[in-house]
Amino acid sequence: MEWIDSLRKLLKEDQVTVNPTELERHSRDESYHTPHLPDVVVFPENREEVSRILRFANDREIPVTPFGLGSSLEGHVIPYKGGISVDFQRMNKILEVRPQDMLVRVQPGVTRSQLNRELKKYGLFFSVDPGADATLGGMAATNASGTTAVRYGVMRDQVRDLEVVLSDGRIIRTGGRAAKSSSGYHLTGLFVGSEGTLGLFTELTLRVFGIPEAIMAARAVFPTVKQAVNAAVSIISSGIPVARLELVDALSMKYLNEHSETRYPAAPTLFLEFHGNEAGLKRDVVFAEELAQGEECQGFQFETDTKARAKLWEARHHLAYAFIHRSPGKRLMVTDVCVPMSELAGAVEHARHALNQEGMEGGILGHIGDGNYHVLMMIDPTDPRDVDKAEKINASIVEYALGRGGTCTGEHGVGVGKIRYLRREHKEAVDVMMSIKQALDPKGILNPGKKLPPR
Amino acid sequence: MEWIDSLRKLLKEDQVTVNPTELERHSRDESYHTPHLPDVVVFPENREEVSRILRFANDREIPVTPFGLGSSLEGHVIPYKGGISVDFQRMNKILEVRPQDMLVRVQPGVTRSQLNRELKKYGLFFSVDPGADATLGGMAATNASGTTAVRYGVMRDQVRDLEVVLSDGRIIRTGGRAAKSSSGYHLTGLFVGSEGTLGLFTELTLRVFGIPEAIMAARAVFPTVKQAVNAAVSIISSGIPVARLELVDALSMKYLNEHSETRYPAAPTLFLEFHGNEAGLKRDVVFAEELAQGEECQGFQFETDTKARAKLWEARHHLAYAFIHRSPGKRLMVTDVCVPMSELAGAVEHARHALNQEGMEGGILGHIGDGNYHVLMMIDPTDPRDVDKAEKINASIVEYALGRGGTCTGEHGVGVGKIRYLRREHKEAVDVMMSIKQALDPKGILNPGKKLPPR
Repeated sequence: MEWIDSLRKLLKEDQVTVNPTELERHSRDESYHTPHLPDVVVFPENREEVSRILRFANDREIPVTPFGLGSSLEGHVIPYKGGISVDFQRMNKILEVRPQDMLVRVQPGVTRSQLNRELKKYGLFFSVDPGADATLGGMAATNASGTTAVRYGVMRDQVRDLEVVLSDGRIIRTGGRAAKSSSGYHLTGLFVGSEGTLGLFTELTLRVFGIPEAIMAARAVFPTVKQAVNAAVSIISSGIPVARLELVDALSMKYLNEHSETRYPAAPTLFLEFHGNEAGLKRDVVFAEELAQGEECQGFQFETDTKARAKLWEARHHLAYAFIHRSPGKRLMVTDVCVPMSELAGAVEHARHALNQEGMEGGILGHIGDGNYHVLMMIDPTDPRDVDKAEKINASIVEYALGRGGTCTGEHGVGVGKIRYLRREHKEAVDVMMSIKQALDPKGILNPGKKLPPR
Repeated sequence: MEWIDSLRKLLKEDQVTVNPTELERHSRDESYHTPHLPDVVVFPENREEVSRILRFANDREIPVTPFGLGSSLEGHVIPYKGGISVDFQRMNKILEVRPQDMLVRVQPGVTRSQLNRELKKYGLFFSVDPGADATLGGMAATNASGTTAVRYGVMRDQVRDLEVVLSDGRIIRTGGRAAKSSSGYHLTGLFVGSEGTLGLFTELTLRVFGIPEAIMAARAVFPTVKQAVNAAVSIISSGIPVARLELVDALSMKYLNEHSETRYPAAPTLFLEFHGNEAGLKRDVVFAEELAQGEECQGFQFETDTKARAKLWEARHHLAYAFIHRSPGKRLMVTDVCVPMSELAGAVEHARHALNQEGMEGGILGHIGDGNYHVLMMIDPTDPRDVDKAEKINASIVEYALGRGGTCTGEHGVGVGKIRYLRREHKEAVDVMMSIKQALDPKGILNPGKKLPPR
């Protein structure tokens, strides 16, 4: 392709590749979605290069798909229309830590664990923790969350400012360093979660928190999933400021034990964590335990030392990999609805019913303090019956959630996998979203085929 | 005007008025900005009527300005191009309280105190509390905040879903009832703070909180404003989850005492409040007091009973009125910058210097836990020298903030008063905002002349 030669002239030699291994690596994510090769992969090192690439692509109407670490779960980074895959791995610097402002400025290729290693020196931490050690640029693009959102908020709550390169190469900043603002339109919130369809991020200013004075983690085992969910709903409704509140069902506990070499009971379990000062936290824990006992929990098993606590949460974070690694050749399909708390018990029960009805094995787990839960299924993407079953289950779960004020995706994003539900969830508001897309990317070069239905 | 007769046919007789008193009431807000009469005032009672009004106005390119209670501070509700003032006072119903989901659904004309009276029955409260008893629609339109934002967040953090009537009469919903979502673009965040320039709100779903188990309020008096600010910065940086942290300078304390018949010392003061469980809160208070004593505070004066606490916060909320009522014939000019915490002490010192330099009397106060503070000045809007002085002071304070990563408006919004600073604050991002405005309101009928610079 002639244009790839022209593209090479914009960057250094080692920044542009058509190496088949690299093309293949940029053709897929961690999901079951069908891979598709880009025509070329580029590795920009600064905002000016990203701007140059976009100006080039926009002039020639070449599709551009941003790529972090490829840990997306709905095909976000798959370049279905070919074109340029923009890999941010070389833009991975932590630019500035501002402890007094509780802010950090980073490039988009920095991963969350890389950031937390640095922040620890300042007694600070970054709260958002999806299962994967994703890049912060990717996490902002999907509005990712994880286990701590119930207390600290989702990715959108942490992004104070973005540097964004627009489709035509213009560079803007969306926010500032002040803790709040009523100036201008809230572009930061608009670009967070836009999945690379409105612009590419070249810098992020993120809110961070002080490491709490005291932390207590606990497991609580219940006779049934329903009782675990009911206990979670009670804890949230009581106003206890729990920092983490995760459900893991019996099957998932079994896989977790196998993968992480733990010996937790293979029964429906809540993983909890409390942050605060020593005195306040003790009170919170006692109150939460009482509520759990009301649902026949036999009491909290505390992970008192730092190591056991780290082990607990590492096991929880690796749960998707526990499913993936025991099913070689299969691919992960994971649902991601989020429902109002009053609908959560019914929704989780319905999900189990949907699995049983299709005779599909699947684990149920999630961030149920937010009403967000996942069904994990391992499927053979080349077997149409397998795919069909999983899609039926997903559709049934999404329909249930949308009928009750919920959303088709709590934290993974739309990618290609959820587009079919957009109109059902947002109705006429989809047209407004499409007007905004049209205004900011008139030629439609930015991650085409993702996030919104076709025009 | 012929079109007013046509407009009358869309609504009941008592919903359309050109009564001079009503026109006058809808020509001004609580600020010093020059009033301007609308041609007509309408009082819609439901979304369909709002939709009809907008379709009508859009067809004829008639300006439309929404009106809540007129408590805006930058001329937001003043219909500078005439046309239709849409008053939401008849859409003032609390439609639904969902205690388990911690949500409430309201019409835009409901005021914050009206909502809190209802929520109290459920043990819940709505957190955002600007000085005025504003409508929730108006508060969402300006992204208002107040004394509790430091703990519970600003208006944008509380709005889960909006029903919006677009410029051409289309009706959309921007969100849902789930606690989080990665579906679609974040329209809720875009419409919150859009000051009536992108659409009119006809329904809001808002997050509410449980009334805390324990509350403690305190005053802390300091020798100088600088020491008070330093103490506030220390408290925030320490991570103490303070629920309110307000600065009131000596002059403002004097006026506050006069207006509210209190006898607090007329010296630089922090007003603080702590929420939590009894045990945790006691620890927080002790820690905060230690930090304050490091800045020569003589210790906390606690307002232990509910009545004294209510008195304290009522006095604080009425502070703007304390300035207004002692200067009959004059109008309020209030600055509203928000700066990063690391810049706060310097910014407040600079503000006092700016006042002294112009020989202008002014109080300094604000929500300094967020880095947001106000300078209150009473000016004679018919005296050009007075206006000029106040505008010089405002400009100097804004320039200082913008040079240090701050914003020209922390919570009042842009209206007409801050438009001149938009380009300086957001640079090329203003063009993106204008593209969005163009896409959603191509004829420019919605609150023209506000929020963004002219095309």
